[in-house]
This record gives sequence, structure tokens and C-alpha cells, in this order.
Amino acid sequence: MERRLFDEDHELFRDLAREFNVREIAPDYAVWDADHMMPRRLWKAAGEQGLLGLAVPEEFGGAGMPDYRYRVVLDEEFARANHLAVALAFHLHDDLVLPHLLAYGSEDLKQRWLPQMVSGDKVTSVAWTEPGAGSDLRGIRTKAVRTSDGDWLLTGQKTFIGNGISGDAALVLARTDGSTGRGGRGSFSMFMVEKTEGYSTGRQLDKMGVKASDTAELYFDSVRVPAENLVGEEGKGLEYAAGQLPQGRLAIAVASSAVARTVYEATVKYVGERSAFGQRIADFQNSRFTLADILTEVEVTEAYVDSAVRAFNEGTLDAVSAAKVKLWASERAKSITDRCLQLHGGYGYIMEYPVAQAFLAARLLTIFGGTSEIMREVIGRSVAV
Amino acid sequence: MERRLFDEDHELFRDLAREFNVREIAPDYAVWDADHMMPRRLWKAAGEQGLLGLAVPEEFGGAGMPDYRYRVVLDEEFARANHLAVALAFHLHDDLVLPHLLAYGSEDLKQRWLPQMVSGDKVTSVAWTEPGAGSDLRGIRTKAVRTSDGDWLLTGQKTFIGNGISGDAALVLARTDGSTGRGGRGSFSMFMVEKTEGYSTGRQLDKMGVKASDTAELYFDSVRVPAENLVGEEGKGLEYAAGQLPQGRLAIAVASSAVARTVYEATVKYVGERSAFGQRIADFQNSRFTLADILTEVEVTEAYVDSAVRAFNEGTLDAVSAAKVKLWASERAKSITDRCLQLHGGYGYIMEYPVAQAFLAARLLTIFGGTSEIMREVIGRSVAV
Amino acid sequence: MERRLFDEDHELFRDLAREFNVREIAPDYAVWDADHMMPRRLWKAAGEQGLLGLAVPEEFGGAGMPDYRYRVVLDEEFARANHLAVALAFHLHDDLVLPHLLAYGSEDLKQRWLPQMVSGDKVTSVAWTEPGAGSDLRGIRTKAVRTSDGDWLLTGQKTFIGNGISGDAALVLARTDGSTGRGGRGSFSMFMVEKTEGYSTGRQLDKMGVKASDTAELYFDSVRVPAENLVGEEGKGLEYAAGQLPQGRLAIAVASSAVARTVYEATVKYVGERSAFGQRIADFQNSRFTLADILTEVEVTEAYVDSAVRAFNEGTLDAVSAAKVKLWASERAKSITDRCLQLHGGYGYIMEYPVAQAFLAARLLTIFGGTSEIMREVIGRSVAV
Amino acid sequence: MERRLFDEDHELFRDLAREFNVREIAPDYAVWDADHMMPRRLWKAAGEQGLLGLAVPEEFGGAGMPDYRYRVVLDEEFARANHLAVALAFHLHDDLVLPHLLAYGSEDLKQRWLPQMVSGDKVTSVAWTEPGAGSDLRGIRTKAVRTSDGDWLLTGQKTFIGNGISGDAALVLARTDGSTGRGGRGSFSMFMVEKTEGYSTGRQLDKMGVKASDTAELYFDSVRVPAENLVGEEGKGLEYAAGQLPQGRLAIAVASSAVARTVYEATVKYVGERSAFGQRIADFQNSRFTLADILTEVEVTEAYVDSAVRAFNEGTLDAVSAAKVKLWASERAKSITDRCLQLHGGYGYIMEYPVAQAFLAARLLTIFGGTSEIMREVIGRSVAV
Ligand SMILES: Cc1cc2nc3c(=O)[nH]c(=O)nc-3n(C[C@H](O)[C@H](O)[C@H](O)COP(=O)(O)OP(=O)(O)OC[C@H]3O[C@@H](n4cnc5c(N)ncnc54)[C@H](O)[C@@H]3O)c2cc1C
Ligand SMILES: Cc1cc2nc3c(=O)[nH]c(=O)nc-3n(C[C@H](O)[C@H](O)[C@H](O)COP(=O)(O)OP(=O)(O)OC[C@H]3O[C@@H](n4cnc5c(N)ncnc54)[C@H](O)[C@@H]3O)c2cc1C
Ligand SMILES: Cc1cc2nc3c(=O)[nH]c(=O)nc-3n(C[C@H](O)[C@H](O)[C@H](O)COP(=O)(O)OP(=O)(O)OC[C@H]3O[C@@H](n4cnc5c(N)ncnc54)[C@H](O)[C@@H]3O)c2cc1C
Ligand SMILES: Cc1cc2nc3c(=O)[nH]c(=O)nc-3n(C[C@H](O)[C@H](O)[C@H](O)COP(=O)(O)OP(=O)(O)OC[C@H]3O[C@@H](n4cnc5c(N)ncnc54)[C@H](O)[C@@H]3O)c2cc1C
Repeated sequence: MERRLFDEDHELFRDLAREFNVREIAPDYAVWDADHMMPRRLWKAAGEQGLLGLAVPEEFGGAGMPDYRYRVVLDEEFARANHLAVALAFHLHDDLVLPHLLAYGSEDLKQRWLPQMVSGDKVTSVAWTEPGAGSDLRGIRTKAVRTSDGDWLLTGQKTFIGNGISGDAALVLARTDGSTGRGGRGSFSMFMVEKTEGYSTGRQLDKMGVKASDTAELYFDSVRVPAENLVGEEGKGLEYAAGQLPQGRLAIAVASSAVARTVYEATVKYVGERSAFGQRIADFQNSRFTLADILTEVEVTEAYVDSAVRAFNEGTLDAVSAAKVKLWASERAKSITDRCLQLHGGYGYIMEYPVAQAFLAARLLTIFGGTSEIMREVIGRSVAV
Repeated sequence: MERRLFDEDHELFRDLAREFNVREIAPDYAVWDADHMMPRRLWKAAGEQGLLGLAVPEEFGGAGMPDYRYRVVLDEEFARANHLAVALAFHLHDDLVLPHLLAYGSEDLKQRWLPQMVSGDKVTSVAWTEPGAGSDLRGIRTKAVRTSDGDWLLTGQKTFIGNGISGDAALVLARTDGSTGRGGRGSFSMFMVEKTEGYSTGRQLDKMGVKASDTAELYFDSVRVPAENLVGEEGKGLEYAAGQLPQGRLAIAVASSAVARTVYEATVKYVGERSAFGQRIADFQNSRFTLADILTEVEVTEAYVDSAVRAFNEGTLDAVSAAKVKLWASERAKSITDRCLQLHGGYGYIMEYPVAQAFLAARLLTIFGGTSEIMREVIGRSVAV
Repeated sequence: MERRLFDEDHELFRDLAREFNVREIAPDYAVWDADHMMPRRLWKAAGEQGLLGLAVPEEFGGAGMPDYRYRVVLDEEFARANHLAVALAFHLHDDLVLPHLLAYGSEDLKQRWLPQMVSGDKVTSVAWTEPGAGSDLRGIRTKAVRTSDGDWLLTGQKTFIGNGISGDAALVLARTDGSTGRGGRGSFSMFMVEKTEGYSTGRQLDKMGVKASDTAELYFDSVRVPAENLVGEEGKGLEYAAGQLPQGRLAIAVASSAVARTVYEATVKYVGERSAFGQRIADFQNSRFTLADILTEVEVTEAYVDSAVRAFNEGTLDAVSAAKVKLWASERAKSITDRCLQLHGGYGYIMEYPVAQAFLAARLLTIFGGTSEIMREVIGRSVAV
Repeated sequence: MERRLFDEDHELFRDLAREFNVREIAPDYAVWDADHMMPRRLWKAAGEQGLLGLAVPEEFGGAGMPDYRYRVVLDEEFARANHLAVALAFHLHDDLVLPHLLAYGSEDLKQRWLPQMVSGDKVTSVAWTEPGAGSDLRGIRTKAVRTSDGDWLLTGQKTFIGNGISGDAALVLARTDGSTGRGGRGSFSMFMVEKTEGYSTGRQLDKMGVKASDTAELYFDSVRVPAENLVGEEGKGLEYAAGQLPQGRLAIAVASSAVARTVYEATVKYVGERSAFGQRIADFQNSRFTLADILTEVEVTEAYVDSAVRAFNEGTLDAVSAAKVKLWASERAKSITDRCLQLHGGYGYIMEYPVAQAFLAARLLTIFGGTSEIMREVIGRSVAV
């Protein structure tokens, strides 16, 4: 069935995005992958091209395009080009940091950050997870203590932080009520924390895939955070995080769906060209049946994700729905890339094949941004009241 | 996410359908189930209520409502009421026989049949499958030979024929080119065959589920079929069957989705009321996770099926898309009813529980109207060109 | 790989069992299935043939063959002959009631019961489950109160009781410490309860499958149970039930494995004989692959179950191991019968086909004798200490 | 259930193997992993320790221990130590090259090769696969032409060759009958080919996992192969390869089972130590159930693989049985490592965690040594005769 998500404008934007992949990323992606790092010039180029901060209002230098379908187009093009680490890096900046600033940031914060995030002059991270607390953010121990002059002193350790080394600042969740043990609803606050004294970056984590995106541990040793860098109100950190989760999760669903579609198409091509036993791999009934299942799942997933995108655009994508779409699409992407890899035979195991890269990228999707188990918990709680 | 398939008119029709289930079916369904047969009065009542032949133009006594969403409403209500055998019986009449007559029948045929199919005065069957040929209709051996006066003599055997005993006539696929072995594209023709001399009904088949709908073998021993009862043109039987398959398959997808939703809801209720080990079954994490998965699949399936319904209404649901939606929804219904049954513990195994009935009904969905393997073949062929 | 479980003696016993199926069961099984009941003469014949109470020592009239492989042979032959309801009925008598009497019964109890259970003169049931308590036996509310003369008065309701109508007595688990709510470890006792005043049988339950075995609700209204009918010691009911669970669960695993093997073989035969599209169903790659998976699973399951049988014979099959083998084999049987049914096309849905019967029987295996969820709980607790 | 595969001798050997892992591999494994290469000294050390060529008769310098259980012990210890690339490298040498020489090599060949393979002075590869032919060896195009002096000139290209860069010689399958297209049964011969003029090594392949084992393309440009290096008879290459496949596949099954067990144990430990939401991950019912399933599968797989090991020792492991055990165990390892990874949350995605390494290693198991599809084909053909 025909997809009907996009208008002409989106397709024009798609051309831009496609060109950007070809021109700015493709020539160097393999190097970045080996380096576990991408250069700042990529962000600047993206900014110039108008690919960052799409939702930022014009007054803050943005395009004022909150329509999430543009983000979908971008993700689809990153997937198609097999530049999944770029998609991940932009996702943190655009789907996580940005909406928090837009929704809860003071005018001052917005003015200082948004234009630079749009231009690519500032690259941002989300620093919530800690070595001892991932799924359960109430276990976070990084703490911010207010000084007499109203600034904050931040101390603690974060891990798994994407753009952690390459970025300029992080949206940090920290405990501000002095509590220990599992915190309460109001124990945490959100801060924009710039790299400054006491803020150091630990080692790169050697990830399984999406290597071109750097991921690191961060250490805060009495980092002074200006009062103005508190995002919104004190004690509302968890509430804010929960409030913006739908976008983060929708984004992962969108990426999942895009990866699945791309890998499916690459596999159809592969099995149509490769032969064994005197026929095309595509002509074995098992291949045909496997691809039939996969294509059906791809379409089913697109139909569901697209309806979530529409709901998001209308402001009705709630936390439970976002959990459903994230759970569904990420699990499908995992399973589809696995079956597609298998259809590539030995070549599926070699990193130069896109399916290998996609398989490894997909393995992250059911874990980060909330594991599938956490999604099931969120959904399950809404069911069994 | 909110479903948006229906308008107010559909919801009004839903009230009708719901009432019909309560008033006309519920009191006797268990008896019909035991009898493997439902009475003619049910059809008459449905006709009066305007539930049959919705798509039939007003000139032939119908409501002129080709909008498939009304059929969806009806199927949802049969599912909700756990009257799945009625859904099956109506499906054969309305989704299979009727569209063939509408699309290919001569004016005369339409005039003779449609009004009575709409009123419930005539109940019809589809008689394609034979003991030796199901998936592969080219293997059909029932043959029709033209007599000198232009009528046809029909001889052969059919099996698995729903409404076969209770019905008045069957839409029969028969070989008309005298060939043997696997027939060619043009070897078969379609006939409306009334019960008359030489047309006998074999034994009831003891089905696993949906028992209230009768299913039987049919024998044709030189049955005389008037020339006017040829549907469309000679030699076009297979083409016609293929042409109307999308509706038949969409219908099964719709029913599958409706069964899945209903059983899910019944199960949520059940596990919320039943306890073990001092807590509700709903409160075990395993139950919660299982229901989270199921609910997600239910919604995903609805999103996909709904998009197929829209495509059908617009005339764009092609054979491959219909195969996808049938494959997807029927496999989901099978799996969902199975997991829901399990959540009922021992009670899931007792026929008075709706989940047991639904599980058995669902097991048919991946088989009839084209098995899942045939669906994969159809889809797979379109992929691997 | 060759199975090596059996010696020549077992194969001789197999001949007996096979003949018994042919002679005593096959001619009437369909009638019993329709009646939801099998006649007493079957039990007598089985007794005469030496098929009941194999493990009973010679002094109590038995064959003194605790070697569980004879029971395996019997189950395999019931499965092969598609007489699964007989297997179920015998299982309750031989794998559940009998071991309790052997292990905990007083000399008197043994003398009164065992010879008659061996001869088939007495047919027994296990009556543990209640409408409100299945997985969690501590929720049982049937209570036995000791009278001044030492006898007990039993009051309560049981459900799902196999052989409940046709049998003579039941091994009842009842609360004897007067507690309410969830009972403690020592709150329950086990009794042999004969049909006598106050012991009435409720309605037959209309089961999904294995219909020839009757299953009913039981009501105890101040049934007087003689002091001698207490099995073992007061307050040890739960301990005893737990002690004999391994045999009950092993038995279900054995039956599961036997059903899987039988259905696999029937399906190989079926697809080798049926054709479509000009070739045997067996010759489609999808059929071949499906059967390859199934055969592999059948063998894997046999290897595992056989090792459990050996462990049981050596007295080392603990509760956790029994849970594993029950979980594994029953889930495999469920999945294998489902896939085999699918390979039968429409015929798989018709009850006269053994695969249909087996599919329905298999659906019980993951539920009774402890659900798969309870198995996972038992195993999981042993893991995560 | 207790495993009973091993005697005391095997456990003594296990101590050796374990120590070897600790002393010779562990300190440098990470370096080798980064280098995609392990040093020759490892092979020498293994030779000294008596870990290579176990099955080689004493007359050729071996231990004369064809009992495959010693290889099982070794594989288990490599898995436990997470040194899977070493296992792979040794596997090629010991389970593939060696048995061919033992079974078909001339006295001369054996004398020249076996002692050095046992001592680790020569490291060998298997070079069958080509860019255009993997599953279907009859598609191989590398050809050997006999010269007038009886030697052979070998020309062609191979790929995916483990130990291809680090090794000294390869067991090459080449076409010797001058045919083109798919070869016949007798079109191919087997050669031991040493690195000499015309034998060059292409680039390293960047594999997804097991990186410490080098894998490369090989090029043969008129390499002169002495007449004595023909293994067995001309034209019997395919027959020989088929004859030794059971050992190769059994070996992969053994490794699969060992990986599954190891990862399961690591995961139990991990979830017992990590907490979220105020409890151990192990204490969530979902974790418990998942681990229960996994443990059951681990044991089931061990039971099956062990029975295959016994059959192999007795000389009765045929090609179909070997396909079954390879299919089963490799698919289990893939699925188990995936679920265990998930239970590690974000840490499962970081390469320093053994589960990440194991997951990537396991992904190879369903592909090399014959894909799962080829296994199903082999099994399926034996079924549906
Ligand atoms: C590559 C990568 C990039 C990342 N990028 C960022 C980033 O930029 N910023 C950031 O802040 N974080 C980031 N993360 C962290 C990520 O969000 C967390 O890893 C994830 O939320 C899981 O947390 P955890 O790893 O602590 O797992 P844990 O919470 O320790 O979970 C372990 C296991 O227990 C399960 N579990 C947890 N709770 C329950 C429950 N109640 N019931 C049942 N099962 C449960 C989990 O599903 C999982 O299987 C990243 C992670 C990765 C791997
Ligand atoms: C309850 C019930 C009601 C029915 N009602 C009607 C009715 O009213 N009118 C009517 O005409 N028919 C009816 N049918 C018949 C139904 O449509 C057929 O059963 C169905 O199409 C399958 O055909 P078959 O049973 O001959 O299976 P077969 O064609 O014999 O198939 C056997 C197996 O082989 C598989 N297979 C077949 N071809 C291939 C292939 N190319 N590749 C791989 N696998 C393949 C199938 O999927 C199946 O698993 C009904 C069936 C049932 C069970
Ligand atoms: C045909 C048939 C024959 C039977 N024969 C007999 C007989 O002869 N004698 C007899 O005494 N009994 C018999 N039984 C009863 C049978 O043993 C019980 O049905 C079974 O133990 C499950 O109990 P329940 O039905 O009460 O399910 P419940 O305990 O109500 O379980 C409902 C659901 O909750 C799940 N659940 C329960 N506890 C947990 C938990 N802790 N965590 C997660 N999930 C959980 C279950 O797995 C199930 O999915 C029979 C049952 C059937 C269907
Ligand atoms: C890391 C690694 C190490 C290796 N080491 C060695 C080595 O040391 N020496 C060596 O000689 N080889 C080695 N191999 C090669 C390996 O054995 C092959 O990759 C494998 O046999 C599959 O062949 P292929 O890659 O050509 O896949 P193809 O044969 O091209 O298969 C592609 C897909 O088609 C499927 N397919 C093929 N035939 C059928 C059929 N009849 N029906 C249905 N589906 C079919 C396959 O299952 C697969 O999914 C290695 C491979 C890898 C990845």
C-alpha cells in the first residue's frame, strides 16, 4: 500500500538531505568510523544546509518547522546512505536536548543556545545515564548543590554519553535535593552544562556499532554551573524528561523503520544478483518467503510509525503510545536486519556490507532511549490498571 | 493512538449491529454451535436489519453502501459478541459470492440473485475447493460441459463448502475446456449453481471451531445449469476469482484484527479479576509484559488493516497488498489468541470461555482464503522479480 | 541420531501396548470422544493386560516395574494411535494418584487401593484444583475437619477433575488447619476420598480437546472420610504434592515428546502424498525447511526427555529439572503440532485428522500439571539466587 | 540434570586448557583483537602443551586421542575465557585440515605435515570458498591443471579464508577436470598448498566479530603444487569434503553450546549484581523467566550435542545428524547471546563486555561451515524422500 505521509515539500527537503549525505558524509564516513569520531565541520555543514534544529522558531535562528516529517525524511536518508552514526549524533542534539530547551528553557537560555545549535556551532549531549543508573533515573547520584551566589556546583559521573567527547555542552540530570538512595519525583533538576573547569571526559566506549559517533564517560568535579543554566524550575528534572520522552522515542521508532526499509531493499537487490546451485538466491522459496515476511513487517511498521508521527504533529502522542511505537519498531528493526544479514551469507558478516553495519546499529535500538523491557513496563502498567 | 477509521454513520451502524448480535444471535448461538448449523431465520433477520449485501446498489434492493467500513463494523461486532461462525457464514455470502455477481454478473443474474441475497431469502456458498485442489485452483476437476441447448452439465465434487448444507446455491468454479491435468489460465468458468437435481450434499465436516457455520462436501452429478447462470464469460473463472481475491482477503484480515482486539480486551479483564499467590494475575510482570506486547500488536495490526480498508475503498488494494494484510493479520490473530488463552490458565481450555472459541476460530484464519504459505508466495514473487 | 533409551523388554511391552490400542481402543474411541466419557471395561482390559500400576510392587498385585521406560512406551503408543484422552486418564491414575499412595500411604491404604488400581477395578482422580486456585495450591479452600471419632468431614468444591465423573475416588488436597486466606506450608493434608454421601459430581466441562476423558467439577458436602484415608501425615499435603511433582511433570514431558514425534511422522506422510502446483507438498522448499526444523526439535526433545527419564529411574530428577523438561517438551509439542497442522492445509482443521486432535491435545500440555509460567518461575528462582 | 559426558581424564585435560587460556592468551588477547591477528608463538605454545592435533596418531607425533571429548573440553575453555577467535583458528586447523589428511592423505603427506601441525610449527587453512561460491562448492572456479611432470598449476581466488594471512598452507579445493559452469561430482580435487610463488594474500576482511583470527582473500596465480600434495585421489575432492563435514559441523555445534553456556552464566552473574528500581535485575520476573528459558535451552542443547559427540566417537554421526546438531546449536547460540546481551542493558553494547564479544562471535555460527539454510536443505531432503 502506498505511503501517504509526505507532501511535496518533504520530498524537496529529501533531495537536500540526500545530497548532503553524498557530498558531506559519504567520502569520509569510513574514516570517522575508524576514528570513533566525526569532525565539527560536519555539524557546521549541516547547520548551513538547514538540517539542524528544524523545530527551532525563526526568532532563534531556526526554520520554524516543528512538522516532524522533516526529521523523518532526514532519518530515512541517513539510513538509506548507511550513515547511522550521524543519525544518532543528530538525534541527541535535535530530539533530546533541543525540545527540552524549547519547552522549558528560559528566554535567556534559548537565546544563548538555540541559534548556535541550529548553526552547528555548538554540539550538545544528553547526560542522564550513570554507571549505576540507566533505566531507573531515580538512581542517579550526580548532584548539584546551590552555592550562596545562586550558581550550582555539579559533581558526579555519567556514562554512555553520545557526543560526549566531541560536544560542547550537556543537558545534565542531577540530584538537587540532597537525598540519597532512590530519589523522589522532585529530587532532580536539569542543567545545561558547558565544558569548563572540572568537567572532564573519560575514555571512549568501544561500542558494537555506530562507531563514528563518539560515546564516553563524563566526570564532573565541582563544575560551576551558572544559575541561568538551570533548565526550567528546580526539582522538575524528571517531569521534564518524562515530558519529552515521546519525541525521543518516536525518533528511535522512525530510525528503526528507516533502517528496516533500507536493509530490506539492499537485501532484495543482493539476493537478486547472487547465485548458487544454478539459480538466484532470490529464487529459492525460502528466500522469497523470508523477504515476503520482511516486506510485510516493513510496511506494517511504517504504517504504525507514520500514524505516530501524525499524532506527534498534532500533539497527541502520549508516553504510552510512544513506548509502543518505540518497542515495536526497534524490535522489528533488530529482527529484520538479522534475517537480512543471514540472506547475505558470509558477506553479511563483513563490515563493508551495509547490512552488517545496519545489524549492529539496530542492536542498539532496543536498548537505548529506554529498553524494550522498560517500554513493556510502561505499556503494561497502562493496561492492567 | 486513536483510530480514525470511522465516522458517525459507522458508529450508528455499529449500534444496529450490536443490537442484532444481542437480540438475534446471542440467545441461540450455543445451540447452533452444537448443531453445526444456523437457522434461516437468522439470515432473514439480518436481511431485514439491512446487514446483508451492503454493497449492492439500490436498484437491486441493496443499501448501495460499498464503503467497506460498514463491513468492518459488522465484523468487529460479531467478534466482540463471539459470534464468529456467523461472521464466517456472512463473509462467504457477502465478500465472495456477492462481489463476483456485482462485477461480472449479467443484468439478468443480478436481478435474479441480488435482491434475494440482500433480503436473506437466498443464502449462498462459494464452491471452489475440491478434495484434490485447494491452494492450486488449476487442479480443479469438476467439469461443466455445454449441452446443445446452451445449458451446462456440471459434474464433480467440492469440499470445505461453507453454507454448503444450509445454503441455496453455490458460486462454482468448474473446468470448461475439457482439459485434464493442471488447467490453463482459460480452462475454468464460474457458475451460480442452484440446488436442483443431481446436486447433493455430503457429510458435514467436523471442524475444529466456528462450528455453528455448516461446512460440507458437495456432489454434482450432471447437474443442469442454465446458460444464464454462467457468471461473466466462459474461460474467465480464474481471472474473476483473482480479481475478487483482494476483498476476500481483506475481509479475513479485518476479522482477524477484530478477533485479536476482542480477545485482548477479554484477557485484560480476566487477569484483572483473577488472583493467585496473593496478587492479581495482571500484576505479575510476565502478564503485564505479555499484554503490552499483545496490545502493541493489536494496534499495529489495526493501523495496517485500516490503511488497507482505505485503499480498498479507493479501489487501490491490489492482490499483493491484500496478501500482505491477510498474512499479517491472520498470523497475529493466531498468535494473540494463543497467548491470551495461556493467560487464562485452565479456563482457556474450556469451550465456554470466549478465548477458547476465538483461539479455535483464529486457527482457521491462516489457512482458508489462501494459506499463509500462498500469501508468502504471492508477496515473494512480487519482490524478487 | 539413534535413540538408546529402550531394551528388548521395552519393545516387547510395546507390542502389547500397540495391540491394546488396536483391539481395545481404536474401534470405539470416536464414540467415547463424542460421549466425553470412556467405559469402565477399558480400565478392566488395561488391568488384565498389565498396563496399569506398573510401578506397584508385586505384593500389592502390581508388576513391580518402577522402570519409567515402560510408562514411556505406553505413552508413545497412545500417541501413535492418537488415543490421547486415554493417555490422559491413565496418567492421572498412574502418575499422580499412585505415586502418592506408594510413597506416603499406610500399609492399610496400599492394601485397599493398589490391587484394585492395578486391576482397573477402581479408577482414581486427582482433585487439587479449585475454581479459585490452580497454580497456587495454597489458595485452596476445601476443608477437612476432624470429627471426634477421628474421621474427617470434607467440604468444598474442586474443578477440572479428570476421571471426575467416571472414577471411584479422588486424591483430594484439603485444608486441615482451619486457616483462611493463603495457607501455610503445613495447612493442607491429602486424602483418598471415595464416592459416598455428600460427594457429588458437577457438570462435565466442555474441553477443547482430549474429549474422551471426562473432566468435571466435584462438590463435597460434609463428606465423611475415614481416618485411614488420610494419606501419610496431617499437614503434609503440600510437601507430598511437591514430592511427587517430578513424576507428574516428567509424564507430561514424555507425552509431549511422543505427540510431537507422532504428528511429525504423520505430516511427513501427508505432504509426501498430497500435491499442488504439479508437485508434492513435500517438495516445496518451505515444507522441507519446516519439516527439517520440526524433526530437529523432535530429536532434541527426545534427547532431553530421555535423559530426564534416566535421571528419574535413578532417583535424581529434582523438581527444577522436572520443571525444565515439562516446560521444554510441552512448548515444543504445542509449536510442532501447530506447524504440522498448517502443513495439512484445510484438512488440518477437520477433527477426523489426527493432527487436529493432536493440536488440541497439545494445547493442554503447557497449562495443566503446572503452567509454563509456573515452570519458568520454578526454574527462574533456582537460577537467580 | 547432570551432564555425563566427561571422565576424569577429560577434567585433567580441562585444567591444562584452562591454564593455557590464562597464561598464554588472556594477557594479549585484546591486542590480537585490535590487530586482527594472533602471533605464531601462540601456536607453538599450544603445540608444546599438547593442545593441537589431538587425534593424530603417536607415529606422527600426536597424542593419539581421537576421543572428541578432548576437543569439546578445549572449546568449552576457549568459550569460558572468551577467546573465541582462538577457538576458530584452531578449529580450522584441527577439525578441518587435519581430518582430511588423516583420512585421505598419503603416508608421505602425513609424514610431512602432521608432526608440524601437532607442534604448531605449521599453521593451516581451509580454502574452499570463493567470491562466487560458498554454499554451493560446485560453483568453484579455481582450477588446477596437471603439468607434464605430474605437478599441478593452481590458479584462482579464494575468500573468507581463516588463518589465510598467518598460516603456512591451505587445504584447497580446486577444479581438475577442466569443466566450466557447475561442476560434477568428480570435477574437483583437494590439495595441500604451501605459500610459494604465485600464492598471494589479499586484504584482511573486516569481520563483525572474532577479530583476533585473521580472515583473508587468497590469490593463486599459477602456483606450482607438487604431485605429492594432491590429497587422496584426483576427482574426489567433493566426496572428501562431504566425508569430513560431520566433524566440522559437530565442532561448530560444540562451540555453539559452549558459548551459550558461558554467556548464560555470565548473565546470571551480571543480573545478580546490578540493580534498578530498588531491586536486583535478577529479581524482575521478566529476567527470571528469560533466564529460565535460556537455561533450559542451554541444557537441552548440551544434551543433544553430547549425544552427537558420543555418536561421533562411535563413528555413527552421519551427515544429516551433523547438520541437525549444527543447525540446532548455532541457532540457539545466536538467540541466547542476543537475549543475554539485552539483559545487560547498555553494557551489552560495549565490546569490553564478554557478552558483546560472544554475541558477535555467535552471529557467525549460523553462517559458516554451511548456513542454517543449507542445514535445513540437507535435513529436509532426508525427510521428504
Ligand atoms: C550506545 C549507547 C548510547 C547511549 N547514549 C546515551 C546518551 O547519549 N545519554 C544518556 O543519558 N544515556 C545514553 N545511553 C544509555 C541508555 O539510555 C541506557 O543504557 C539504557 O537506558 C539502559 O540502562 P542501563 O544500561 O543502565 O540498563 P539497566 O537499567 O541496568 O538494565 C539492565 C537490564 O535490566 C532490564 N530492566 C531494567 N529495569 C527493569 C524492570 N523494571 N523490569 C524488567 N527488566 C528491567 C533492562 O531492560 C535491561 O535488560 C546510551 C547507551 C548506549 C548503549
Ligand atoms: C473451515 C474451512 C472452510 C472453508 N470454506 C471454504 C469455502 O467455503 N469454499 C471453498 O471453496 N473453500 C473453502 N475452504 C477451503 C480452503 O480455502 C482451502 O483449505 C485452502 O485454500 C487450502 O487448500 P488445501 O486445504 O487444499 O491445502 P493444500 O493446497 O493441499 O495445502 C497443503 C499445505 O501445502 C502448502 N502449500 C500449498 N502450495 C504451496 C506452495 N506453492 N509453496 C509452499 N507451500 C504450499 C499449504 O500452505 C498447506 O500448508 C475452507 C477450508 C476450511 C478449513
Ligand atoms: C483439561 C484440564 C484437566 C485438568 N485436570 C486436573 C486434574 O485432574 N486435577 C486437578 O487437580 N487439576 C486439573 N487441572 C487443573 C490445572 O492443573 C490448572 O488449570 C493449572 O494448574 C492452572 O491453574 P489455573 O487454571 O487456576 O490458572 P491460574 O493459576 O489462574 O493462572 C492464570 C494465568 O496466570 C499465570 N500465573 C499464575 N501464577 C503466576 C505467577 N506467579 N507468575 C506469572 N504468571 C502466573 C498462569 O500461568 C496462567 O497463565 C486440569 C486443567 C485442565 C484445563
Ligand atoms: C568469518 C568467516 C570465516 C570463514 N572461514 C572460512 C574458511 O576458513 N574457509 C572457507 O573455505 N570458507 C570460510 N568461510 C565461508 C563460509 O563457509 C561461507 O560464507 C558459507 O558457506 C556461505 O557461503 P556464501 O557466503 O557464499 O553464501 P551464499 O552461498 O551466497 O548464500 C547466500 C544466502 O543464500 C542462502 N542459500 C544458499 N543456498 C540456498 C538454498 N539452496 N536454499 C535456500 N537458501 C540458500 C544461504 O543460506 C545464504 O543465506 C567463512 C565465512 C565467514 C563469514
